[in-house]
Amino acid sequence: MARVTPISGFPEWSPAQRIVEQQVLDELRRVFELHGFASIETRAVETVAQLLRKGDIDKEVYGVRRLAADAEGSGDQVGDPAKELALHFDLTVPFARYVLENAGHLQFPFRRYQIQKVWRGERPQEGRYREFAQADIDVVDRDSLSFHYEVEMPLVMAEAFHGLRRLGLPEMTIRVNNRKLAEGFYRGLGVEQPADVLRVVDKLDKAGAEVVQRELVGLGLTPESARKCLQLAEIRGSDATFVQAVRDLGVRHPSLDDGLDELAAVVQAAAEQAPGRLVADLSIARGLDYYTGTVYETTMTGLEAFGSACSGGRYDSLASDGKVSYPGVGISFGVTRVLGLLFARGLTATRSVPTCVLVALLDEQARPHAAAVASTLRARGVSALVAPAPDKFGKQIRFADRRGIPFVWFPGTEQNGYSHEVKDLRTGEQHPVDLHEWVPPADDVNPGVVAPA
Amino acid sequence: MARVTPISGFPEWSPAQRIVEQQVLDELRRVFELHGFASIETRAVETVAQLLRKGDIDKEVYGVRRLAADAEGSGDQVGDPAKELALHFDLTVPFARYVLENAGHLQFPFRRYQIQKVWRGERPQEGRYREFAQADIDVVDRDSLSFHYEVEMPLVMAEAFHGLRRLGLPEMTIRVNNRKLAEGFYRGLGVEQPADVLRVVDKLDKAGAEVVQRELVGLGLTPESARKCLQLAEIRGSDATFVQAVRDLGVRHPSLDDGLDELAAVVQAAAEQAPGRLVADLSIARGLDYYTGTVYETTMTGLEAFGSACSGGRYDSLASDGKVSYPGVGISFGVTRVLGLLFARGLTATRSVPTCVLVALLDEQARPHAAAVASTLRARGVSALVAPAPDKFGKQIRFADRRGIPFVWFPGTEQNGYSHEVKDLRTGEQHPVDLHEWVPPADDVNPGVVAPA
Repeated sequence: MARVTPISGFPEWSPAQRIVEQQVLDELRRVFELHGFASIETRAVETVAQLLRKGDIDKEVYGVRRLAADAEGSGDQVGDPAKELALHFDLTVPFARYVLENAGHLQFPFRRYQIQKVWRGERPQEGRYREFAQADIDVVDRDSLSFHYEVEMPLVMAEAFHGLRRLGLPEMTIRVNNRKLAEGFYRGLGVEQPADVLRVVDKLDKAGAEVVQRELVGLGLTPESARKCLQLAEIRGSDATFVQAVRDLGVRHPSLDDGLDELAAVVQAAAEQAPGRLVADLSIARGLDYYTGTVYETTMTGLEAFGSACSGGRYDSLASDGKVSYPGVGISFGVTRVLGLLFARGLTATRSVPTCVLVALLDEQARPHAAAVASTLRARGVSALVAPAPDKFGKQIRFADRRGIPFVWFPGTEQNGYSHEVKDLRTGEQHPVDLHEWVPPADDVNPGVVAPA
Repeated sequence: MARVTPISGFPEWSPAQRIVEQQVLDELRRVFELHGFASIETRAVETVAQLLRKGDIDKEVYGVRRLAADAEGSGDQVGDPAKELALHFDLTVPFARYVLENAGHLQFPFRRYQIQKVWRGERPQEGRYREFAQADIDVVDRDSLSFHYEVEMPLVMAEAFHGLRRLGLPEMTIRVNNRKLAEGFYRGLGVEQPADVLRVVDKLDKAGAEVVQRELVGLGLTPESARKCLQLAEIRGSDATFVQAVRDLGVRHPSLDDGLDELAAVVQAAAEQAPGRLVADLSIARGLDYYTGTVYETTMTGLEAFGSACSGGRYDSLASDGKVSYPGVGISFGVTRVLGLLFARGLTATRSVPTCVLVALLDEQARPHAAAVASTLRARGVSALVAPAPDKFGKQIRFADRRGIPFVWFPGTEQNGYSHEVKDLRTGEQHPVDLHEWVPPADDVNPGVVAPA
């Protein structure tokens, strides 16, 4: 095992970073469960046929095959996409498959959250990984799905983000648009293939208004219509006043009316329940063609250049067995992506271990007594560890200090009348304490978070 | 997405089963962290070269390769085991690699726990999966590792198992042996290749004493020596009296003495700190050849036929960069394996959702008020959900009942003077309550567990 080097795009966190990640995942889980989302996990693999249904992401999929099958030349159904296996690249496609496979056993509307790793064979770069964790919430119903879930989803995520601020994550702004609004607007302008326009407008951020204007005219739009598409994409609003701004562009279409009503409902609910955390942003397009209603993206204050941290939308035909369809709406938070950016900027934990107290060891004979002290502390929920060896106390204190363990416990001995003492390594103060009563300050029980500089 | 069928060996739990799994993982994490183990996760993939170092498990490894690489014929380093990737088949080999890769940043002795999925392309059968979760604890040190960790590891696991009884898991007996003891005994009998004898004795359970006796003689042992090997393997003990039983066989060797001392120390500590949960079992061999000291296996009461639920041991040379070695000791608990057996026997949760309270909906206009009630309950840590639609109350109650949600909340309206009422669906009783004070009984806040019949 001489040569061991990292594999590009497959990040591994340090123990201190992992503590932050666990606290982030705990907070997401807490909020999701308070809102009645049930956890599921799906297998890491799907059939290649499932994953390539949408056709546009095949370059990123990792196939999975027994090495023995290669060696034997038996090939384990190589070439049969209905049987060949591959790692999932998101949690939405596996969830849709899970719903179809278990439809007879699930209660609809079905609310689930799912926090798992996914894999994509993309070129790694800052904030882009080949293996990364996502945290998704979705609601699916049978046949039809009430609109009010499109209002609810971003509010749940906004509540989770609010809790994550305490863990050093940046402020998040959820940006919302509606497919019906944009498509109705384009149709109202006489466009027959609104998806083509959507694709061009989606480049606005990167390519700029001039290029988009030119390409829209290339699609057959009049310069005036192209200009209106650009004006639409510039509209923003944290309350329902954006509706009038759209109306002022003078375009009329029934889908546009539906989309405006829906987007206004989302923005109004957010203005009441999560003020300042959600805006209507009519430039949001979302590349994936399965969205049919509200769509969501999220920008991180100070990290806008890294794109959306949390995205999703309403989909009507992702899960369908040909007879019954299961429309849904969901949002996916890119946990690894966001944490990777923040770890690179200094986010970490106050210690690299869960341990709150190191119990010092006078000599090897004292180990059972030290173990009993540690056990007493653990029974009160305090993570405690006996020093590895009866080294000089200075060395034992350094052992604790290097890990960020805040307290060292000196068990009572015959010489000092069995008086226990605790040293706080931050202040250097040492006091006699009662083994059966002492508890650390609440903030020291678990590791805290050190925010990025 | 018409044809969706399960993939053999890749289990997916129902939402209720997943709730049990989460509670099991929470309990493992709680105990591991109380004992100062830091969490790490390693990437799902290692290089093929890493995974095949031990050579004996190559048939079970799943290779991972970008589909695009296959299609392009570029082959992504196909055939170069130092670059080709594969899914890890346990958490010990990746941990050893992690230690070597990060040795400069870790504090030794390094205690970590790791709970992740692993993959093996074995033939699936009851209690054997191709994708399954393991929960491992290990301690590694640089250059040398104190023996006392071999005593500590099974005590931590025994404490975790004790907590898991409450979640419907069976009683677990940790069975301990020591490689030095067995090897010393065989060498004391004049055997020069003790590993060969170990491999034969390991078959005792399946093949029986007669076959083992014959095969040992086939290895060159005298019938008398072979009989002593069998007698050794029959020795059991939950206190140090087993030492005399070994001594009585009349074999002498320095390694045997070391092994007896170590095994006696483990058993004695367990008799004091975890009485009844650990026994010396001199038949335990553990197939993996990297163990060098104490070895552990675990039987589940009532499920003995399914083999060890939790295994491990001391290893001295798994992690070594040629100059420095990192000896360690660890135990791995087969979470999916154990839960799969118990789910098949009826273990489940009292409800299929985290939701404790369904807030009933009189009409669609009442949704904001119902949402405010749910929000008030959530602020007190009570999982609450607004009914999906203003159906007849009977239908809303059935919605809750089918999911096992214990309480339905009827928000106050103008007609009843804004008096809130809560109905307990188990008793059918309904009472007026104060929105700002009501809390559910502690046992109802989270889903409970229904033990196997």
